Amino acid sequence: MCDICVMESVKERMLSRRTFFKGSAAAALGAAAAGAAPRPVRAQPAMRVVDMTHELSDEFPTFGGVPGISYDKQFDFASDGYNLYVLTVNEHTGTHIDAPLHFSADGQSVAEIPIANLACPLCVIDIRARAAEDRDTQVTPDDLSAWIAANGPIPDGACVAMNSGWAAKVGTPEFRGADAARPGGLHFPGFHIEATQMLLEETGAVCMAVDTLSLDHGPSADFATHYAWLPAGRYGIECLAGLDNVPAAGATLMVGAPKIRGGTGGHARVMALT
Amino acid sequence: MCDICVMESVKERMLSRRTFFKGSAAAALGAAAAGAAPRPVRAQPAMRVVDMTHELSDEFPTFGGVPGISYDKQFDFASDGYNLYVLTVNEHTGTHIDAPLHFSADGQSVAEIPIANLACPLCVIDIRARAAEDRDTQVTPDDLSAWIAANGPIPDGACVAMNSGWAAKVGTPEFRGADAARPGGLHFPGFHIEATQMLLEETGAVCMAVDTLSLDHGPSADFATHYAWLPAGRYGIECLAGLDNVPAAGATLMVGAPKIRGGTGGHARVMALT
Repeated sequence: MCDICVMESVKERMLSRRTFFKGSAAAALGAAAAGAAPRPVRAQPAMRVVDMTHELSDEFPTFGGVPGISYDKQFDFASDGYNLYVLTVNEHTGTHIDAPLHFSADGQSVAEIPIANLACPLCVIDIRARAAEDRDTQVTPDDLSAWIAANGPIPDGACVAMNSGWAAKVGTPEFRGADAARPGGLHFPGFHIEATQMLLEETGAVCMAVDTLSLDHGPSADFATHYAWLPAGRYGIECLAGLDNVPAAGATLMVGAPKIRGGTGGHARVMALT
Repeated sequence: MCDICVMESVKERMLSRRTFFKGSAAAALGAAAAGAAPRPVRAQPAMRVVDMTHELSDEFPTFGGVPGISYDKQFDFASDGYNLYVLTVNEHTGTHIDAPLHFSADGQSVAEIPIANLACPLCVIDIRARAAEDRDTQVTPDDLSAWIAANGPIPDGACVAMNSGWAAKVGTPEFRGADAARPGGLHFPGFHIEATQMLLEETGAVCMAVDTLSLDHGPSADFATHYAWLPAGRYGIECLAGLDNVPAAGATLMVGAPKIRGGTGGHARVMALT
């Protein structure tokens, strides 16, 4: 199949699966989405706040390989008494959100993600050891099952985050993993479609996060995880930082998604309370 | 004095005052700034999250009166399989941050605001009744003293926020209060320079927030509050929303300031935990 045929096939499959499995997990998601979840945002005190955001600049690596932000200084302190820039920014740059609308015709924009879904119990799936051996590795259902065995069920409203160790590679060519032999080819870890399906069908997680440039791993030709996760009304975070500094379970992720009308995503300030 | 002379005079005065009073308040600020404050971010559970952010669009009112954001759709779902915009945004648009660098030659950029200072005990100064009678009214030292008498000392690391009722006026001409008789003149509430001095000299508050377009009230000719507060290494939030939905004391403001290298501010997702 050509790439477009693969994408169409994946979309068809996802659509039928979502219809079939829209029972308990969808109900849990709906409860969280309504902002009426009975659970507290955080049941225990928060001792510290951890920055989960990379600094954004025109040097920050992007999926496409070109700078994602440019600066136009319109006022300068020396001559005008204050400093001010107008910025031109690709929505999908830096530590940023993928809203449902990014990969759907009419999904939620980034401004429409329910506020209750921006304060998430954080579940960290640590695949650093495997990723150090295989840069194309993916989060699998077995990884999720191992997390559940160690930490209990994935909470409703959770953000399930992949820690592949990639945050430390920003500033090196390894972050994008450009393939010298295959122009446009990239290499970094992501979520396997089967893990994505497991989260969709068996949990009320509202957010999937990666410390790499894409929810799908670098070699993906069909963006299967994007096409499964986002049209289902859940959202993603790409290029998340700081995952080495939070526990596997028990932190609360505060996702500062930009509230831009009609936006398909956008750079975000993400913090964790621990 | 001309406007520029007034500004210079204010800056001189502020500089000398800051030097004189850089004792206890500066020490408290330094402790918060170092991210090593012994206080927990939040000592009690958080039951709910409250959105404190206006939706940003090209219709959102700006200080200058022209749209602060424009959209360039580069990919479309129907033809490309996904949606993506490149946005051009004035940093000081929507619910946004004023970093120290906005009104100083070499103050902290928005990316340099310490992470500990983005999780703030929120103190809400309610001047709605007075602002309904006088659109040019200002927060005064007496307002701060009344808050302290009712709620106790302003905590180190606090955000002190003015609720003038202006958030409800977005979408009406009253939000900017353009003066028909004086081109460029605006009318809305803000912080009086004497209240600003009191916060600088007597508290370790790190953030000042308003529900209007400027920390200084609309008629200000000298931006005295901007020139006092920001160069002192504290930051501001303008166009804050949601203040009617949080208590006068006890909430925690999570300030999703964009982490843009060298930025003088930027639109932000701000939430409160209550």
